[in-house]
Amino acid sequence: MPLARSWVESANDPKTDFPLNNLPYGVFSSTGLDPRCGVAIGDSILDCRAAEEAGLIDLGHGPVFDVPFWNEVMEQGPEAWGALRARLTALLGADSTERDTVAPLLVPMEKVRMHMPFLVSEFTDFYAGRHHATNVGTMFRGPENALPPNWLHIPIGYNGRASSVVVSGTPVRRPWGQLKGPDDAAPRFAPCARFDLELEMGAIVGTASDGPVTLDEADAMIFGYVLLNDWSARDIQAWEYQPLGPFQAKATATTISPWIVTRAALEPFRCDTPPREVPLLPHLQDTGPMLYDIDLEIDLAPSGKAATTIARTNYGEMYYSAAQQLAHHTTSGCPMNVGDLLGSGTISGPEKHQRGSLLELSWGGKEPITLDSGETRSFLEDGDTLTLRGAAQGDGYRIGFGACAGTVLPALQDPYDR
Amino acid sequence: MPLARSWVESANDPKTDFPLNNLPYGVFSSTGLDPRCGVAIGDSILDCRAAEEAGLIDLGHGPVFDVPFWNEVMEQGPEAWGALRARLTALLGADSTERDTVAPLLVPMEKVRMHMPFLVSEFTDFYAGRHHATNVGTMFRGPENALPPNWLHIPIGYNGRASSVVVSGTPVRRPWGQLKGPDDAAPRFAPCARFDLELEMGAIVGTASDGPVTLDEADAMIFGYVLLNDWSARDIQAWEYQPLGPFQAKATATTISPWIVTRAALEPFRCDTPPREVPLLPHLQDTGPMLYDIDLEIDLAPSGKAATTIARTNYGEMYYSAAQQLAHHTTSGCPMNVGDLLGSGTISGPEKHQRGSLLELSWGGKEPITLDSGETRSFLEDGDTLTLRGAAQGDGYRIGFGACAGTVLPALQDPYDR
Repeated sequence: MPLARSWVESANDPKTDFPLNNLPYGVFSSTGLDPRCGVAIGDSILDCRAAEEAGLIDLGHGPVFDVPFWNEVMEQGPEAWGALRARLTALLGADSTERDTVAPLLVPMEKVRMHMPFLVSEFTDFYAGRHHATNVGTMFRGPENALPPNWLHIPIGYNGRASSVVVSGTPVRRPWGQLKGPDDAAPRFAPCARFDLELEMGAIVGTASDGPVTLDEADAMIFGYVLLNDWSARDIQAWEYQPLGPFQAKATATTISPWIVTRAALEPFRCDTPPREVPLLPHLQDTGPMLYDIDLEIDLAPSGKAATTIARTNYGEMYYSAAQQLAHHTTSGCPMNVGDLLGSGTISGPEKHQRGSLLELSWGGKEPITLDSGETRSFLEDGDTLTLRGAAQGDGYRIGFGACAGTVLPALQDPYDR
Repeated sequence: MPLARSWVESANDPKTDFPLNNLPYGVFSSTGLDPRCGVAIGDSILDCRAAEEAGLIDLGHGPVFDVPFWNEVMEQGPEAWGALRARLTALLGADSTERDTVAPLLVPMEKVRMHMPFLVSEFTDFYAGRHHATNVGTMFRGPENALPPNWLHIPIGYNGRASSVVVSGTPVRRPWGQLKGPDDAAPRFAPCARFDLELEMGAIVGTASDGPVTLDEADAMIFGYVLLNDWSARDIQAWEYQPLGPFQAKATATTISPWIVTRAALEPFRCDTPPREVPLLPHLQDTGPMLYDIDLEIDLAPSGKAATTIARTNYGEMYYSAAQQLAHHTTSGCPMNVGDLLGSGTISGPEKHQRGSLLELSWGGKEPITLDSGETRSFLEDGDTLTLRGAAQGDGYRIGFGACAGTVLPALQDPYDR
């Protein structure tokens, strides 16, 4: 599929994240404009509330843009999702007959502040990257026992904390927690000393379900994708996670990119999961390509210094697709709701520079990485800004996600002193 | 504190769960009455919506009973909680001057259907019962390694699935899941064969927080308590839970009792946590009695047969209070919201008949229990009705929770056939 041309000239630049082929959904505010839904197009944002009020968009069941989140659109269902995308394509395409009416509703992207694009109902985080699970397992249990016995059979996941999900740009405070080093006689309560990131994709559930769903049904339930950084306190995690899994180590914050890139926009970039070492059970077997070829990178910028790209990888490296994760999520009858967010798990490739966390990049702190500034990092330092970027590369255009960024603030001196 | 007398005569019966001292909060519907908030008093329910519309209740910031859940009341904060309780006590007390106005707003309890009393924001389940953790640990890892190293230092918990929380009376469908017995060569997808209950208390967070809170602050944030049955698929759990904890094994359903018993009503029944084997770190150290002396029991009734009480225990057996769990929950900065639900973890006592799950009562299925009907049980059978009951015993009255019941429906023949 080639570039689809828009009358918004900046959307035709092959380097923009937001050509007409993309049309991702976010929530923005600007001087005189309180938070509202918008669609990115080149270097501008179409104000959806204004477009709906002007009668340019009508999904047929009353207003959906009178609230500053995309859940109402999701609630309308897949047919409405398709109708909205078709309408936006017509309004913003090079052949649009409504250019003069639409142009005044565009807001320059450089002037806006982005907000959470949707209300997160519940957040589930998976562990579906083969290379990540192997790296972490090798560090903790040795290469023979790297993958848990269940790993090749089910996408292992755990419930995360929806209240901790924040939008790109939100600073992240280094947490306190209970820690116990291998040589400590007793645990202590202290600021996290091994604060880390995890490069992930997030899939947003757009359709509710109330019983087991097939893989094809699960795929159709997904509204779109975001970049996701699952900030992780490795020292808190090591002490708390047995036997019930990560808890406070993952509850400080999870940052998502501000633009929901729709499943429709990613359609041309579908790719297969890797060959199966052991066959999956029938209910999890791939019925078609449900992963996406999305290039990803992690940039780390120390306070006041330029960023270094510390890793490059691709979403296609995952062993399980979001559809497989969602299908597994429903096997027990677990009800899924509009706005549920599924983290893919850390996306690492087979090579050292493709690892999606500092835990892996520095091999548990034993092999610190060197930044362009000459500084080294085993884990994150106060003031570091982490930025995830991602894009699917088309023929003369790219489907980008925008940045997923956060700066690490120092731990509170006394967490109970207010 | 003695019985507080009400003009509703049934509330003065020493055997009622709902004397004037209690005044628990639920949501009910009845012929001609759509779901609405109500307060239990003896064998009746005060229709709070009607009482608010009649001007009998006014919390001062607009209507709070125009919605069928208690979250709006919680949002008003602890001062309003106290004012509401005082007002209800005045309206329903023996000395009430408004008896004639209030009496027509009472609905007979036998004619109502109960609904979820609040919107569950997020659900966290803990593992804070010493006897339960020791029993399960002994079965799985032997008596020397029964308690994980962290257990005496932090209330171990994991995030559960809010969407799966249902009110008492909702049938529970036996789930399918991926299982692998110790002698199976490969996993299979099949109905759960080891379906279990867990007797727990649930604490409801009534005040939001956005950073670490002290133990006293945590205690003050709790709006009330419910009984909670954390249905558990033991065979699914055994295969999936390493390394990230329980997931689908706990996602079929969690049943709560329909009445929120307020912290105020339970005030006279506070008791201490047990002596500490090792001192807790300062931020978790008890500052006063924050557990409650609540007698609990589990009744199991096979289809069409009378119930057998299979266990009796007490909430005071827990090692950690809900306040300690909540304080720990916030250490990382995890934001807590109105409507968050915290499960205590299974409440087992030291004796065999005090065990709060069939896993423990039948010792992993090795010692099936015998019911009054002569049948035996290792795990739940289709058609079994499980009922949890609980009450704090006062001087001539009891603070009861009502029943927390659910019947096990057979697994679907084919979970994907709709």
